Amino acid sequence: MEEVVRIVEEGEARYTHPVVIEGLPDVGLVGTIAASYLVEKLDYREIGHIESELFPPVMVIHDGKLKNPFRLYSDASGSIVVILSEVAVPPKAVYPLTTALAEWFHRITVTEPVISLKGLPMKNRMEIDKPEVFAVGNTDAALVLLKEKQLELLEEGFIAGTYAMMLRECSKRQISAISLLAQCFPVYPDPGAAAAAIEAVKKFVPTLAVDVGELLENAEEIKLKARDLMQETALSASEMQKGMEQDMPIMYR
Amino acid sequence: MEEVVRIVEEGEARYTHPVVIEGLPDVGLVGTIAASYLVEKLDYREIGHIESELFPPVMVIHDGKLKNPFRLYSDASGSIVVILSEVAVPPKAVYPLTTALAEWFHRITVTEPVISLKGLPMKNRMEIDKPEVFAVGNTDAALVLLKEKQLELLEEGFIAGTYAMMLRECSKRQISAISLLAQCFPVYPDPGAAAAAIEAVKKFVPTLAVDVGELLENAEEIKLKARDLMQETALSASEMQKGMEQDMPIMYR
Amino acid sequence: MEEVVRIVEEGEARYTHPVVIEGLPDVGLVGTIAASYLVEKLDYREIGHIESELFPPVMVIHDGKLKNPFRLYSDASGSIVVILSEVAVPPKAVYPLTTALAEWFHRITVTEPVISLKGLPMKNRMEIDKPEVFAVGNTDAALVLLKEKQLELLEEGFIAGTYAMMLRECSKRQISAISLLAQCFPVYPDPGAAAAAIEAVKKFVPTLAVDVGELLENAEEIKLKARDLMQETALSASEMQKGMEQDMPIMYR
Amino acid sequence: MEEVVRIVEEGEARYTHPVVIEGLPDVGLVGTIAASYLVEKLDYREIGHIESELFPPVMVIHDGKLKNPFRLYSDASGSIVVILSEVAVPPKAVYPLTTALAEWFHRITVTEPVISLKGLPMKNRMEIDKPEVFAVGNTDAALVLLKEKQLELLEEGFIAGTYAMMLRECSKRQISAISLLAQCFPVYPDPGAAAAAIEAVKKFVPTLAVDVGELLENAEEIKLKARDLMQETALSASEMQKGMEQDMPIMYR
Amino acid sequence: MEEVVRIVEEGEARYTHPVVIEGLPDVGLVGTIAASYLVEKLDYREIGHIESELFPPVMVIHDGKLKNPFRLYSDASGSIVVILSEVAVPPKAVYPLTTALAEWFHRITVTEPVISLKGLPMKNRMEIDKPEVFAVGNTDAALVLLKEKQLELLEEGFIAGTYAMMLRECSKRQISAISLLAQCFPVYPDPGAAAAAIEAVKKFVPTLAVDVGELLENAEEIKLKARDLMQETALSASEMQKGMEQDMPIMYR
Repeated sequence: MEEVVRIVEEGEARYTHPVVIEGLPDVGLVGTIAASYLVEKLDYREIGHIESELFPPVMVIHDGKLKNPFRLYSDASGSIVVILSEVAVPPKAVYPLTTALAEWFHRITVTEPVISLKGLPMKNRMEIDKPEVFAVGNTDAALVLLKEKQLELLEEGFIAGTYAMMLRECSKRQISAISLLAQCFPVYPDPGAAAAAIEAVKKFVPTLAVDVGELLENAEEIKLKARDLMQETALSASEMQKGMEQDMPIMYR
Repeated sequence: MEEVVRIVEEGEARYTHPVVIEGLPDVGLVGTIAASYLVEKLDYREIGHIESELFPPVMVIHDGKLKNPFRLYSDASGSIVVILSEVAVPPKAVYPLTTALAEWFHRITVTEPVISLKGLPMKNRMEIDKPEVFAVGNTDAALVLLKEKQLELLEEGFIAGTYAMMLRECSKRQISAISLLAQCFPVYPDPGAAAAAIEAVKKFVPTLAVDVGELLENAEEIKLKARDLMQETALSASEMQKGMEQDMPIMYR
Repeated sequence: MEEVVRIVEEGEARYTHPVVIEGLPDVGLVGTIAASYLVEKLDYREIGHIESELFPPVMVIHDGKLKNPFRLYSDASGSIVVILSEVAVPPKAVYPLTTALAEWFHRITVTEPVISLKGLPMKNRMEIDKPEVFAVGNTDAALVLLKEKQLELLEEGFIAGTYAMMLRECSKRQISAISLLAQCFPVYPDPGAAAAAIEAVKKFVPTLAVDVGELLENAEEIKLKARDLMQETALSASEMQKGMEQDMPIMYR
Repeated sequence: MEEVVRIVEEGEARYTHPVVIEGLPDVGLVGTIAASYLVEKLDYREIGHIESELFPPVMVIHDGKLKNPFRLYSDASGSIVVILSEVAVPPKAVYPLTTALAEWFHRITVTEPVISLKGLPMKNRMEIDKPEVFAVGNTDAALVLLKEKQLELLEEGFIAGTYAMMLRECSKRQISAISLLAQCFPVYPDPGAAAAAIEAVKKFVPTLAVDVGELLENAEEIKLKARDLMQETALSASEMQKGMEQDMPIMYR
Repeated sequence: MEEVVRIVEEGEARYTHPVVIEGLPDVGLVGTIAASYLVEKLDYREIGHIESELFPPVMVIHDGKLKNPFRLYSDASGSIVVILSEVAVPPKAVYPLTTALAEWFHRITVTEPVISLKGLPMKNRMEIDKPEVFAVGNTDAALVLLKEKQLELLEEGFIAGTYAMMLRECSKRQISAISLLAQCFPVYPDPGAAAAAIEAVKKFVPTLAVDVGELLENAEEIKLKARDLMQETALSASEMQKGMEQDMPIMYR
């Protein structure tokens, strides 16, 4: 029987105990912006994608090329894997997706930590010059690592959605996983928060030779672009919905 | 077990590596108007239809003849197949329909590109005299072809629904597929956009001897007819719905 | 495994290649009124009923006798079968019901046409003295027959619901089927339309010795009765619903 | 596989072709009030209960004792069985419940009629001093019996819900079943209607030595109590719902 | 096949016929506050958790450590087990959860009573200085025990949700179970009610050496904290929901 969520590797990817960096769309689009910036600046190779009937029937186009919205990237040596999505994960896909990913991590022998990049919405984000990054770890080893890197821990609270289940599913398979939450705007896309998240990732992957300067310089442009895209998206989505809901025949003769 | 979506071929259709042209109802009704015009003007033969319990329980009548709303046509030589629907595809049917079609393309050895005709809604459509047609291709080969034909590519964006999944499912089976999106009215049926889409198709199928003149001449009439039909449809649909939702007995004696 | 829709024949019905006349409740209640009038005036025998968990949990009472709302009748010789329902068919039952009926027609070797009686809502019904009856046929043979009987065909349009699927499912099993649509009131029960439908049926079944006079004479009474019943029905239905939706305990002590 | 609706007999119940009396909550709470009064006044023994995941997750407490809301009672000789519910039957449970009950009746060899007690809502109930009881029977034998007992039959109409399906399912298994409908208040609990229903039952079970006097004397009190309980119920239900719907963590530390 | 609700024991828990104390979130958060206070003050060991795809995808963080929101605790000797949840049980999880728990109780040979801690909402809670605790027992043995401990019984009424089904499922497996309901605020978290519930538990488990003083002293602080958390929770939940419902792509480039 086919799996509900399928991780499709293209070509012959090789992995050398990779660090996994995951960026899914969520508040402030922190994960998606950060992961997209990483794979673009570091010229990572697309090594596969994730497919599911639980995902919306959507494809994306970049530079005229058709792409799956949920993609896997890697560096040349196979020591870093980036998981990036441009579509939000529907609630009913959270459990099967995180289970499929954790099983895949196990299969490709991930021994380095799995790092999820997220936003932490702050009402007073306007007043914050340099967003702080808070961390959550799923095991004692992960917590030791977080302290070593001098990251501030989220002390009390709850976390919900894909990254919460990612931490749990990794923990069940003895894989260290951490979430990095950068303070961000509650509503707008936040390139500054994405930059802060990338800086935090670099503490764990010192070889990650990426400068977030461009991300900060183009922050305004990215914000506007993302906002425009979100508006277009919402518009098109509602139009598509309308077209689809009307299931009576539409005649021409 | 019966398939959820069934492609029913009538008679003994023969295919000689056909080009497939697909026109489903969507914004501007571009695909349905264009595909209907093609099969009518070129006098193509109806070779089958598509059936599914996921489709609405609807039949259409043309010239007094009962027909399935989701039909397959072909020219005499079997070198062109047209897929035409007069009912919108309900969201839950998108995945099974595109999978069934792509598997059928594989079965009948489609090696020429699969071409989907769609509308691209433009707020300023009123000011556009001759709608431009943009293209998306699902493989490198498809992109090369699109450049050869000097079609403008959609460079950045997302696509959703049946044609997006059609591109993906064809790509998974090494079948080239392209979508042609003609600028159209966001709300009204748009015969002008359909004409532009047909002109673009002719670049790929030079033998397609069809003149869009009549389509343009009768544009106003077609628009009115389609609008009337849409109104009637909406009316009848709501009436049918009312009748069906009332599930208490209705007595007569 | 039990079928979702079960056609339950009572006693030992015999069929001699019967004509099937089907009257389900729909706009104007044309089908139900016509079929009920036929079986009453011609004193047809109840030969079975149709059962399904997809139907509402409803029984009807006529002359103090409990009956299924979805019943089968036949004349003494088994040459005419009438299918009559006093409950509307819920949308999710349309496909299984029409499939079950068409398979049953095949099983009892129906070779004469299956005739569905329906209403065709007209805004100006008040101004129409004698409702016209339009026809749809599912096969070339059916169309020939309709022309022979000089019935006006529905030329362009769409049809939806049980009778549309009945035409299709019969066609798939090489059974001729026709729908007769009598012009009717869009909202009120319409005995005049039912009478017109019966007159049209008589063209196909010359032995159907029934006079619609009484139907026309009692039109006002039937209309009022049906309207009252519909109001009572709506009332009771909402009360039943209320009682059923409240699923907390109701105590007495 | 476990049944969807389970009839759980406690201890070693014996049945001597029992009369079955069924009282489920419905309009006027006639069935529940009547059945509760019977088992209390006649000191019947609780012999089991009915369980289903389709029922709401509710238990009741009487005299400090925890009880299932859907219970079975019997007299000492096993010649009378009372089925009583203090929770309404959710729509999706109607078919499995009535099927399970009818099969159980068959298993314990019920040959006497199954009697359902219901209310018949009357707008002018205030003006009715002594509520009339109408009857429905599911077989010719049942109708003969009803005439013998000089009960007025419901002549024309429809019936919906559990008791309608009970009549049908019993009929399918050759078990006589009757419904007794006592005129009642459309909205308020109606002990007077319950008393009338009990008087009607006594015609069928002359040995049923119960005086409805107390029911009539305490009518006002019962009405108030039932109304209070219904209000509390509604309140608690909405509170429970609120608590349950909120599925985010609620922290304490 | 995997169970719908899984009770996951960590390490090698040993049980010596334990008393089970259960505190799930409900009105006044009585159960969660009481159970959390117990395991914290008595320094119980976390021995496992409960997992289900029916639960929301949520994890909690306490003292920087990631934890499942639905946890199992025990004392050193295995004579007391505490079940504690910080997420409400969704309606569809009530039956599988209580069945899984009761089967687990049976497996680990629970012979002492299972005690559920709940709130009993009182409109006049403000005027109540020392909340009373009412009890429900599921068996005659449980009732005897409750009387022995001089607890006031809930005499008439209904109970709904997890604890109602817990009583039933334990009863089906011959396990005594009781619910203790402390009078509480209908809307606000109520540490005073939790303290009263703990005092009542101590009657059954005299060795439970816990002083509720701190709970009462910090009542105001706990209330505020819990209220803040509930507000944050509601906020985050609606934000998460928004992010998740929007299933169109969110682009960055």
